[in-house]
Amino acid sequence: MAVSIALVHYPVKDKQGRIAATSITNFDIHDISRTARTYGLDQFYIINPMPSQKEFAGRIIRHWREGFGSLYNPSRGVALEIASVMDDLSQVMDDIRERTGGKGPVFVGTSARILPHTIRFEQLRDQIREGEQHFCLVFGTGWGLHPSLLGEIDLMLEPIRGVGDYNHLSVRAAVAIILDRLLG
Amino acid sequence: MAVSIALVHYPVKDKQGRIAATSITNFDIHDISRTARTYGLDQFYIINPMPSQKEFAGRIIRHWREGFGSLYNPSRGVALEIASVMDDLSQVMDDIRERTGGKGPVFVGTSARILPHTIRFEQLRDQIREGEQHFCLVFGTGWGLHPSLLGEIDLMLEPIRGVGDYNHLSVRAAVAIILDRLLG
Repeated sequence: MAVSIALVHYPVKDKQGRIAATSITNFDIHDISRTARTYGLDQFYIINPMPSQKEFAGRIIRHWREGFGSLYNPSRGVALEIASVMDDLSQVMDDIRERTGGKGPVFVGTSARILPHTIRFEQLRDQIREGEQHFCLVFGTGWGLHPSLLGEIDLMLEPIRGVGDYNHLSVRAAVAIILDRLLG
Repeated sequence: MAVSIALVHYPVKDKQGRIAATSITNFDIHDISRTARTYGLDQFYIINPMPSQKEFAGRIIRHWREGFGSLYNPSRGVALEIASVMDDLSQVMDDIRERTGGKGPVFVGTSARILPHTIRFEQLRDQIREGEQHFCLVFGTGWGLHPSLLGEIDLMLEPIRGVGDYNHLSVRAAVAIILDRLLG
């Protein structure tokens, strides 16, 4: 499977669109690891450059992979095997290059907004199936990916549209729907 | 839209398959309301007969619908307009009858297991489109719906299958994927 996920906590937008850093949440780690594992992904990168946040996420991951959690609920440990914390997308790039033996990933950004030049779900699904490139899907926390990150993004995926005007999915729900559309 | 959701906290299975009651979690209320609202559902029923739990959920819903939360993040209030707490499926039945002017819903159970006589996603999607019946999708927390509830269920939906053997989606992710497959 040549797909991974990156969940960005910095740089993201706050409510007013300014650059912000969000905190890692326990639920994101669990939900997204379980979804990613169910759809066969091999890596879930939690992007946060703050040392205290990296320590926090590392502690949760270790609890379920190696600590009491691994005995209480082994399937959580299996899910969290694919989770790791990185400073930024360039560390993700290095990690994927190391794993694939050279080639870097195509970074595919996600947004709830309708933007020009987005790739459609079916197109990306086909490209994933061709199997020639590694795709890393990039999700923003807070109010979405900050524009300063977009220089590192190769493609933007079309937004999920529901029924009607309301469109405020949680990032956990968006990850689930997007993985199902691309890989389900 | 003739679809609603019920999230059951009792009777569900615990880890050993015994009957259990789970606690309502803040994240479930928010995530599932937002997903349900995005897909145009008009009701999200939180099923829990325990008074302290009903009080807890009611407090969260009021905070975002009417309290400080409605000023801080109005889109949450809009999502939570569709959320309500009920004792059991028979209260849901009564509420839907009242709303539709007589006719009760078809209760569609969900499970991560492969069971006999399930309805396929495409079949249910077609039936929803026909628009003649109200469908209430029933999700279990904990380790899934307890068999004692199955007498109230009219149809079971086929499980979500990912890639490979691992299949431990959170209920929040399962709701998102199922609504997208049926209504997206």
